[in-house]
Amino acid sequence: MFLTLLDLVGSFAFALSGGTRAVERRLDPFGIVFLAFVASTSGGIVRDLLIGTVPPMAIATWHYAAIACLAGVACSLAYRPIARLAAPVAVFDAIGLGFYAVVGTRKALDAGLSPPIAALLGMMSAIGGGIGRDILTAQTPMVLRKEIYAVAALAGASVVAIGDALGLPDTLTAPIGALAATTLRLVAMKYDWNLPQPQPRRPDEGIDQDPHER
Amino acid sequence: MFLTLLDLVGSFAFALSGGTRAVERRLDPFGIVFLAFVASTSGGIVRDLLIGTVPPMAIATWHYAAIACLAGVACSLAYRPIARLAAPVAVFDAIGLGFYAVVGTRKALDAGLSPPIAALLGMMSAIGGGIGRDILTAQTPMVLRKEIYAVAALAGASVVAIGDALGLPDTLTAPIGALAATTLRLVAMKYDWNLPQPQPRRPDEGIDQDPHER
Amino acid sequence: MFLTLLDLVGSFAFALSGGTRAVERRLDPFGIVFLAFVASTSGGIVRDLLIGTVPPMAIATWHYAAIACLAGVACSLAYRPIARLAAPVAVFDAIGLGFYAVVGTRKALDAGLSPPIAALLGMMSAIGGGIGRDILTAQTPMVLRKEIYAVAALAGASVVAIGDALGLPDTLTAPIGALAATTLRLVAMKYDWNLPQPQPRRPDEGIDQDPHER
Repeated sequence: MFLTLLDLVGSFAFALSGGTRAVERRLDPFGIVFLAFVASTSGGIVRDLLIGTVPPMAIATWHYAAIACLAGVACSLAYRPIARLAAPVAVFDAIGLGFYAVVGTRKALDAGLSPPIAALLGMMSAIGGGIGRDILTAQTPMVLRKEIYAVAALAGASVVAIGDALGLPDTLTAPIGALAATTLRLVAMKYDWNLPQPQPRRPDEGIDQDPHER
Repeated sequence: MFLTLLDLVGSFAFALSGGTRAVERRLDPFGIVFLAFVASTSGGIVRDLLIGTVPPMAIATWHYAAIACLAGVACSLAYRPIARLAAPVAVFDAIGLGFYAVVGTRKALDAGLSPPIAALLGMMSAIGGGIGRDILTAQTPMVLRKEIYAVAALAGASVVAIGDALGLPDTLTAPIGALAATTLRLVAMKYDWNLPQPQPRRPDEGIDQDPHER
Repeated sequence: MFLTLLDLVGSFAFALSGGTRAVERRLDPFGIVFLAFVASTSGGIVRDLLIGTVPPMAIATWHYAAIACLAGVACSLAYRPIARLAAPVAVFDAIGLGFYAVVGTRKALDAGLSPPIAALLGMMSAIGGGIGRDILTAQTPMVLRKEIYAVAALAGASVVAIGDALGLPDTLTAPIGALAATTLRLVAMKYDWNLPQPQPRRPDEGIDQDPHER
């Protein structure tokens, strides 16, 4: 029950990130709901396809579609207050991140994958929605570019995967993993932590390499 | 027989939309055929993966690959006349839209999905090709941005899904659904109907939010 | 044994192409490893999903994740020497291309697909990683735009597919196919061969067609 609530809160936060992006890009109401749905479900859908769970959980029930509709309507009608709420949304997003990472890892372990791969799939469940949202709005996924985001998800997922390898019960490792991911993400945001960036030789070298590129 | 013909006409119209885009973006002949294939099949491929039909219908037979080759060759050799044909192509595209929406919904229902989710998958079958085409040419999918397109597909898909829930026969609901989607799309094009767009606070606010974005 | 070595060399070359792109786009270390993984595995993952092999080979073992980590670390620490190595990397990439095309075709045939479709899936295995890498960095896939790349992969894949249809043994057709693809690619690079490009009417016509586009 508490878990279901967390799942719904996390999904809604992810959906809001899609919905606000959609409004900023001037998508129409259908596009707003669609992007909200993609942002909240594509990580889980990819995970389910990779482990052979069809139809994926996100479309096997109507809950996630309903959450996306709600978030889409909310973003359409109340973009300004939601955009002003950026900080609270980021907190929900961090909660969703931890929750998705842990649940995704568990599902992958149950499907018989080895712990390291299960941790990767858990991370993918948590970050995939943001990647889908960014691909559909034609930008390089934010998660690949900055801030401790994927790494926080991977840390939480690893707690569950390592715990499973050691034979520890999920009732212990799942809360610790989710809490670790969420906390790491929140602390990284607060202090603006980022991973260091390797530099190509000249600042302008890579980006305009190809004159035909748009 | 008539249905197969409609399916082929719809696929060909979708493939032409991919082929002309490819020529405009200066893709090479392989790229033109590839984009024609993606535009005519990716909606159905995603649907089939989500309901567990492997290999997806679009690659289980050679028909769709052949249609993409035909459309690609046509666009390579005769880009100008086809571009001038934009209106007729849009009419075929609207026919394809209705047909794909109805067939996709039926397949999802047969796979045991609930009517609302089946309607979403039907819509996805119809609009997925355009989304794939737009992702591969690095732009935000047109379908998320303007015109009554996805909504027309969803309307047609809903006729079949609701009819199924009410126990009505497909022989009744499928033609009505396809006709509804196609007509709604054609009328929306004629009168340039669009869904209203919510506005972010300042016109420039969202798009350049991130200075690192290309 | 020799085959496994070739597979690893090909994967590593593909992973380097992802890692160097990631450094050029200023991704963080996680993004670099992730893009290396996508570049070396997404073709095979798509192929496995399409033929119903779950979990896909690329995530069923830890080898490919380890190769991506290695390549990512190498690109982070030694971007300049690797970028200077562009020619050797392209040679490995051509080897990987031939190998992936042949292996992908074989797997698709084993899954019961017809030879022409199996050849297409073999080609997709070989070029899919580059497409995934380019989508994630928001550009139209290079493979659709220039040079004999996909066509070389298709040629190698066709050797295996046609050989299968004629009842020839794989021990004969696989090396010929891989060699054909690799050689064709290397020769095309050396002489800068490209497929001819059809032209839209005016040079500027297609690209800025839509004022709302980014």
